[in-house]
Amino acid sequence: MARDDHGVTPQSEDFSAWYNELVAKAQLADRGPAKGTMVIRPYGYRLWELLQHELDRRIKDTGHENAYFPLLIPESYLRREAAHVEGFSPELAVVTHAGGKELEEPLIVRPTSETVIGEMMSKWISSHRDLPLLLNQWANVVRWELRPRMFLRTTEFLWQEGHTAHAGAGDAMRETMLALGLYTEVARDVAAMPVVPGEKTAGERFAGAERTFTVEGMMRDGKALQSGTSHYMGTNFAKAFDIQYTSDTGRLEPCHTTSWGMSTRMVGGVIMTHGDDKGLVLPPMLAPHQVVIVPIGRGEQAEQTLAAARELAARLKAAGVRAHVDDRSQLSPGFRFNDWELRGVPVRLELGPRDLASGTALMSRRLGDEGKQPIPLASLPGDMPGILADFQAFLLRRATEFRDTHTRVADGWEAFAGAVASGWALALHCGDPACEAEIKTRTAATPRCVPLDGPPASGPCVLCGAPAAYGKRVIFGRAY
Amino acid sequence: MARDDHGVTPQSEDFSAWYNELVAKAQLADRGPAKGTMVIRPYGYRLWELLQHELDRRIKDTGHENAYFPLLIPESYLRREAAHVEGFSPELAVVTHAGGKELEEPLIVRPTSETVIGEMMSKWISSHRDLPLLLNQWANVVRWELRPRMFLRTTEFLWQEGHTAHAGAGDAMRETMLALGLYTEVARDVAAMPVVPGEKTAGERFAGAERTFTVEGMMRDGKALQSGTSHYMGTNFAKAFDIQYTSDTGRLEPCHTTSWGMSTRMVGGVIMTHGDDKGLVLPPMLAPHQVVIVPIGRGEQAEQTLAAARELAARLKAAGVRAHVDDRSQLSPGFRFNDWELRGVPVRLELGPRDLASGTALMSRRLGDEGKQPIPLASLPGDMPGILADFQAFLLRRATEFRDTHTRVADGWEAFAGAVASGWALALHCGDPACEAEIKTRTAATPRCVPLDGPPASGPCVLCGAPAAYGKRVIFGRAY
Ligand SMILES: [Zn+2]
Ligand SMILES: [Zn+2]
Repeated sequence: MARDDHGVTPQSEDFSAWYNELVAKAQLADRGPAKGTMVIRPYGYRLWELLQHELDRRIKDTGHENAYFPLLIPESYLRREAAHVEGFSPELAVVTHAGGKELEEPLIVRPTSETVIGEMMSKWISSHRDLPLLLNQWANVVRWELRPRMFLRTTEFLWQEGHTAHAGAGDAMRETMLALGLYTEVARDVAAMPVVPGEKTAGERFAGAERTFTVEGMMRDGKALQSGTSHYMGTNFAKAFDIQYTSDTGRLEPCHTTSWGMSTRMVGGVIMTHGDDKGLVLPPMLAPHQVVIVPIGRGEQAEQTLAAARELAARLKAAGVRAHVDDRSQLSPGFRFNDWELRGVPVRLELGPRDLASGTALMSRRLGDEGKQPIPLASLPGDMPGILADFQAFLLRRATEFRDTHTRVADGWEAFAGAVASGWALALHCGDPACEAEIKTRTAATPRCVPLDGPPASGPCVLCGAPAAYGKRVIFGRAY
Repeated sequence: MARDDHGVTPQSEDFSAWYNELVAKAQLADRGPAKGTMVIRPYGYRLWELLQHELDRRIKDTGHENAYFPLLIPESYLRREAAHVEGFSPELAVVTHAGGKELEEPLIVRPTSETVIGEMMSKWISSHRDLPLLLNQWANVVRWELRPRMFLRTTEFLWQEGHTAHAGAGDAMRETMLALGLYTEVARDVAAMPVVPGEKTAGERFAGAERTFTVEGMMRDGKALQSGTSHYMGTNFAKAFDIQYTSDTGRLEPCHTTSWGMSTRMVGGVIMTHGDDKGLVLPPMLAPHQVVIVPIGRGEQAEQTLAAARELAARLKAAGVRAHVDDRSQLSPGFRFNDWELRGVPVRLELGPRDLASGTALMSRRLGDEGKQPIPLASLPGDMPGILADFQAFLLRRATEFRDTHTRVADGWEAFAGAVASGWALALHCGDPACEAEIKTRTAATPRCVPLDGPPASGPCVLCGAPAAYGKRVIFGRAY
C-alpha cells in the first residue's frame, strides 16, 4: 500500500504497527538507550502535563497533599511485606555501587513507593488526630520490561501514586473508591475515555492488596487498557511497617492503608481510544495545540496571511484557546494539513488570500461530517471554546458507542469466544483462578473487572458451568 | 538555654544546628533511608511546587518546551565527554542488575542529563531549520553525597535542567544569559532572594562547560549559596555526541549547546535567607499558607469563632489568598501562635470572641514593627493581597540590606580575611587557580562569581599581588 511520508500503516491492517509508527511520527516519544526506556518528546509530554494538571487539581481539591519520597529504597524494605516482594522481584533494577564503592546493602530503584512511604508513615502517625494521612507523589518508577511498548509498558514510567492511612476499614474503603472516582472522572471528562470502573478478581490483585479496583478503557482494536488502579491494602502494610495509632480510648491500633496510581500509560490510552488511519485524534482538553492556523499564499500574499494568522492566534490565545501558527512556508499546504491530521489537532483553520479578503477562515475539524466551513474571523475567538467543547463531547460519545457496540452479553462458550475476539464479553464466571487461566489459554482474554454498576446476575460459569461467583457479570477481554 | 517544644537552637548560636532543627520541626523534610536522601514533606513540597510553577511559566513563556528523558543512562554515554565523566565519576550510583540478571553494560542513575539529551539531539537535529532546539526537563537526579545537608546537598534532588542547541556561539551565549536572567528574576521576585548574577572562574566551571554563570545568594550567616547555574558548552557536547546541522549554505556544522539548572536547593536558600531565631520566614509567593487564622475561645464561643474563621478563610480564598484555619482547639492559642511563627506563615489572624464582637481580627505579620493590629473582617479579603505584596517587598529589601551590609570592598589581606569571615569580599584577583586554592586554604573562601554588573577595576591581586585578571572585582565568600 502506497503511503506518503506522513502515512502510517492503517489501523485496520495492523493495529500494533499503526500504534508504533504513530508514536514515532507524531513525535510523541522515541526509544531511550536503556532497554525498554522511553524519551517523551515535547508533544507527548505536553499532553501528559495537561492530564497531570487536571488530575493534580482534583487530588488537591479532595484534601490530599503532594510530597516526595526517595527514588532509592533499601532492599530489605521490599522484603517486609511477603506478597509485595514476590510480586515485584523479577522487575527490579538494583543499584549495587555508589560513590565509587560497593554498597553494604543494595538499593532498589523504586518500582512503587509503598514500602518507603510505609516507613515514613510509621514515624509521622502516632495519634488518631494524625489520621487520615492523605499523601500523593508525582514520580518516576522503574519496572524492568522484557516486552516494552511505548507508554503502555516501559521500564521507566511517570505516574502519581496516592498513599493514605486511616483509622478504620470503612474510611480506607471510602478513600479507595474516592480515588477510583477521580480516575473515572479524569478519564471521561478530560481524556474522553469512557472507562468502566470495577473490581479486579483475586488473581489480578495488586501485590499485597486486599482489594484492587480499576478503570478499564476499550481501545479501538477491542482490547482493554487498565487505565488506573486503586487498592485497599487492609492492614497488611500497616503491620509490616508498624503504621499504628493510639485511638481516642488509648488503644494501639494498626492503620488501614490505600494506594492508587495513574500513569503515562494514559497517553497510550488516548492514542488508542481516539486515533484512526490518518493518525492521532486528540481530545481538545489534552491537545497541545487545540487549533492550528495554516496561512497560505505566495510572495506578498504569504506575508499578509501569515500576519493575519498571527493576529488571529493572539486573539484565540486571549480567549483561552491553545492556538498555533504553522509558519513553515517551505512546505506545501497539503503537506502541512496531513501533518496536523497525523498529529491529531482538533481544529484546523486555513487562511488564504481569498479567505482574508472575505474576512473568514476555512475551518475543518479532525473528525466528523461537517467538512470545511468558512467562519468569520471576528467571531472565531468567541466561538472557538464552544466548538472545542462540542468536539470533546463528540469524541466521548463516539468512544462510548464504540465500547458499547463492542461489548456483548455472552452466555455459552461460542458467544464468549466471539465477543472477546473483537471486544469485551459480559459473562458469568465461577471465580476459580484455574478456570480464569483456562479461559486465558484458550482466548487470551482475562477478567478485566467486575463492573461496579453491573446489574445482579446469576447462573453457570461461561466455561466450566459452576455457579457464578460475583452476583453479576464480569467483563472479559484481551488486554494491554 | 531553655526552649519550649517548638524552639530551635538560635540562629546566632549555631547556624547549622538552627537549620537542621528547623527543617525537621517545621516539617519541611525528613531523612530518607538511603544515605543522603531526603523525604520532602507536604509543607516543603508545596513550597517547591509554588517555586516550580513560577519558574516553569517563565521557561515556557521564553519558548522552551518540556520533555522527559530516561533516568538510567548507559555507562558508555558518560565517557564520551572527558571532562564530564571526570567531574561526575565519584558521585555516580550504578545499576548493575535488573530483571533478575546482571546487565551487560551497567546503567548510571542520571547525575544530570547532558549525555542522553545530547544523543537524542543528534537524532532530532539535521537542518538549520531544526534550530534552536529549546528543551527543558523537570526531573530527579542522583549524586552520591558524603556530607549530606537537607535541600543543600542531598544524594537525590529535584530540579529542572534546560538543554538547548543553537546554530552559533552568539545565539547559544544569548540563551545562556537568558536562562541566568530567569533565575535572577525568580530568585528576586518569587523567593525574595537578591541574588548576584555573575560568571564562575575557570576552577569553578561545570564539568565540560566553556563558560559557567551563576546566581549567588547571601545567607544570614554570611555564606554564599549557588542558587542556579547556566552553562555555555561551546561545541564540546555537540562534538562528543554528533549534534550537527546542515547550514543554509549546505555545510555540516556542530551545534553550540547550553544547559542550566535550578533545584530544590532553593528551598534551603529561602530558609537561610529569611529565617530567624523563631523559625522560618516565608515569602508570601512561596508560603503554603499565606495567612493562618487562629480561632480562640472556649465552649460555645469556640464554635462561633471557628465558624467565623472558616467563613473568613473562604472569603480570603475567593480573593486568591492561601488561607488556613488552625482548628486544633486542643492546643493553646500560644502554642499555635509559636507553631505558625516557627513555620514562617507571613500573616496570622487571631479571632477571639471580643474580636468577633467588634467585627475585626487581630493581625500580626511574621516580621516587622507593626505589632498586632485590629483589621475589620469586612475589608480583610480586599486588603490582604496588598498586605502580602508589602510583606514580600519588605523581605526583599531586608535581604538586600543584609547582603549589602555584609559585602565589603577589600584591598589588602586583612580586610579580605575580615570580610569573608562574616560575609562577602569584593576583591581583585589574579585569576591563578593556585592562588584561589591558597585563599581557600587560609580562609575557606572561594571566588563565588565575577559579577555581571561590577564596575571596571584593576590593581594587584589581594593575595599574591599579581595584576588582577577580570577587569573588575570578584566576589569571594564561604559557600554551601
Ligand atoms: Zn468456571
Ligand atoms: Zn593571586
